[in-house]
Amino acid sequence: MDVRAAVAFGAGKPLSIETVQLEGPKAGEVLVEVKATGICHTDAFTLSGDDPEGLFPAILGHEGAGVVVDTGPGVTSLKKGDHVIPLYTPECRQCEYCLNPKTNLCQAIRTTQGQGLMPDGTSRFSFDGKPVLHYMGCSTFANYTVAPEIALAKVREDAPFDKICYIGCGVTTGVGAVINTAKVEPGSNVVVFGLGGIGLNVIQGARLVGADKIIGVDLNPARKALGEKFGMTHFVNPKEVDGDVVAHLVELTGGGADYSFECIGNVNTMRQALECCHKGWGVSVIIGVAGAGQEIATRPFQLVTGRVWKGTAFGGARGRTDVPQIVDWYMDGKINIDDLITHTMPLDEINTAFDLMHEGKSIRSVVVF
Amino acid sequence: MDVRAAVAFGAGKPLSIETVQLEGPKAGEVLVEVKATGICHTDAFTLSGDDPEGLFPAILGHEGAGVVVDTGPGVTSLKKGDHVIPLYTPECRQCEYCLNPKTNLCQAIRTTQGQGLMPDGTSRFSFDGKPVLHYMGCSTFANYTVAPEIALAKVREDAPFDKICYIGCGVTTGVGAVINTAKVEPGSNVVVFGLGGIGLNVIQGARLVGADKIIGVDLNPARKALGEKFGMTHFVNPKEVDGDVVAHLVELTGGGADYSFECIGNVNTMRQALECCHKGWGVSVIIGVAGAGQEIATRPFQLVTGRVWKGTAFGGARGRTDVPQIVDWYMDGKINIDDLITHTMPLDEINTAFDLMHEGKSIRSVVVF
Repeated sequence: MDVRAAVAFGAGKPLSIETVQLEGPKAGEVLVEVKATGICHTDAFTLSGDDPEGLFPAILGHEGAGVVVDTGPGVTSLKKGDHVIPLYTPECRQCEYCLNPKTNLCQAIRTTQGQGLMPDGTSRFSFDGKPVLHYMGCSTFANYTVAPEIALAKVREDAPFDKICYIGCGVTTGVGAVINTAKVEPGSNVVVFGLGGIGLNVIQGARLVGADKIIGVDLNPARKALGEKFGMTHFVNPKEVDGDVVAHLVELTGGGADYSFECIGNVNTMRQALECCHKGWGVSVIIGVAGAGQEIATRPFQLVTGRVWKGTAFGGARGRTDVPQIVDWYMDGKINIDDLITHTMPLDEINTAFDLMHEGKSIRSVVVF
Repeated sequence: MDVRAAVAFGAGKPLSIETVQLEGPKAGEVLVEVKATGICHTDAFTLSGDDPEGLFPAILGHEGAGVVVDTGPGVTSLKKGDHVIPLYTPECRQCEYCLNPKTNLCQAIRTTQGQGLMPDGTSRFSFDGKPVLHYMGCSTFANYTVAPEIALAKVREDAPFDKICYIGCGVTTGVGAVINTAKVEPGSNVVVFGLGGIGLNVIQGARLVGADKIIGVDLNPARKALGEKFGMTHFVNPKEVDGDVVAHLVELTGGGADYSFECIGNVNTMRQALECCHKGWGVSVIIGVAGAGQEIATRPFQLVTGRVWKGTAFGGARGRTDVPQIVDWYMDGKINIDDLITHTMPLDEINTAFDLMHEGKSIRSVVVF
């Protein structure tokens, strides 16, 4: 079938709006009409060419929501008309990882997904008769896509696509890091480095679970008002701190953060995030993705005296199980997504979304098909 | 009173056996007749001058066992004749740290202890009329010492001093790291870097909790037989591995260690210990103490894909509560201490214990008074 898609033909080039061909779903696969998709830093990272695993030509996009149009042989958990959110971290419920309660990193289709292919090792997309690759198993920058059944979360039908698409990545990553990875308790003091989309979702996750002090750290003073809207109680601009920002945060938290989150992808703030944690029990969670080859460092004394350094991917969420719950929380008003989606546009203007992101003017742009 | 002690008069000098003066216990303090003391790497580290917090003159030693001789005003939990193990990590059961179940790092007397003083800011030891400092709140290289009540674990009276003194540091550090810090589950695969006293205690801790593969890593081939005696199932000598030792350990564990422990104090093996952990859930615990100013490093991707980096001090044990239990385990035959104590000597020969340690000839030397 003909599909309208924003195609990434090569690193560093703008996306090109094209009509591409999409084959129907094979065994275990599902054809989805994409209704809306967010544009995420990870899409920009891959498009820039800095992602060493980036492949072209490909149809990017991994933060979508849509409706099932057709199912391939053997698909049992989804049917035509179901509303779904594609999952770049699938949940097969059968692999060694899915069966271990400590992780959400389902490995069932990892290899082919990393190659931009469906689990059978081929692509459903083509252009001018040549294959175009999938991306993160989602490829939501197209008005139709094919995804494995295990990579689709079924969600309630009254939820608006142009909002819940954001649950496909940013919302779940931030809120999930608080709930699933750090397991923040009520009354905790929390420090969040970087008040972009992820950081703001960490903040509202911390509010949701009843944290006390929720301290946001950002160089952009405009983020203060936005952070406060999501539950931030204190704002720290490192440019306005006399002396060491870590010492300032330790003082502000009365001894150190119970939990800190790095939402930037900068190895220096990752270190600060660890070292501002409370001796004895502070836990620091890395969410941001650092550039290829960069390393984090600290003195081991930081760990020996009780701090814990960990990380999270997709907020530790098991997508088919947890994403529908976060959609419920949005519909119940426990999570604010509306104020995070600052721009909406048609597919033709998708390159504008990347410009807005790079200029720091948007929190999240959403393309509505 | 007159006391026989091995005095550290300065960095890099041998200990000097002297008769020093010891004042009786003040409020909240206890006079203990030390019956036996182990000689630990930490004593050697301080004596060498490499410990930036080392102070002289001092009476070192922190791994002792003895009998209460006298109690100062206000002491309620101990009486004359009680058998005790001094605790360099006290347990006041009242401070913010003791009341937080996530940590064992009681802070009640931290400042004065670090200064080599009793909680009132003075020393009980003197020589030629001048004060001699306490060490780690214990100073077990003397046949009598004074310690705060909160820094003494009361233990059963049928346990031999020359064995249970080792529970004052090494045994609890290794076994506790497994039980309290890592919380290793039955069936886990465990990798232990460094098969000295701490590493061997980690191994027997892992055996105690029912680990499956228990892999020891050491450059000294003589440690293979010793490790096996304590429950090690596989021995890896990095000098005999073709290629990368981390890749070798990942293969040997079928995907990576569920838990790894660094018992050397080398920042390079700390990195290896983290990176040999299983994606998704592997936890690496730093026990060894690195040299001043040294740093650990890794790619943040290691953490984002689910590995956790943490550390432990005194095995996460709350001494007054947990040490008596470990003494019971020793008396019940669940913990082997006898085979770890390779040398016993009188106080006059204590410098020999340091020589044996530096030459790698001993696991643990014990001075019996």
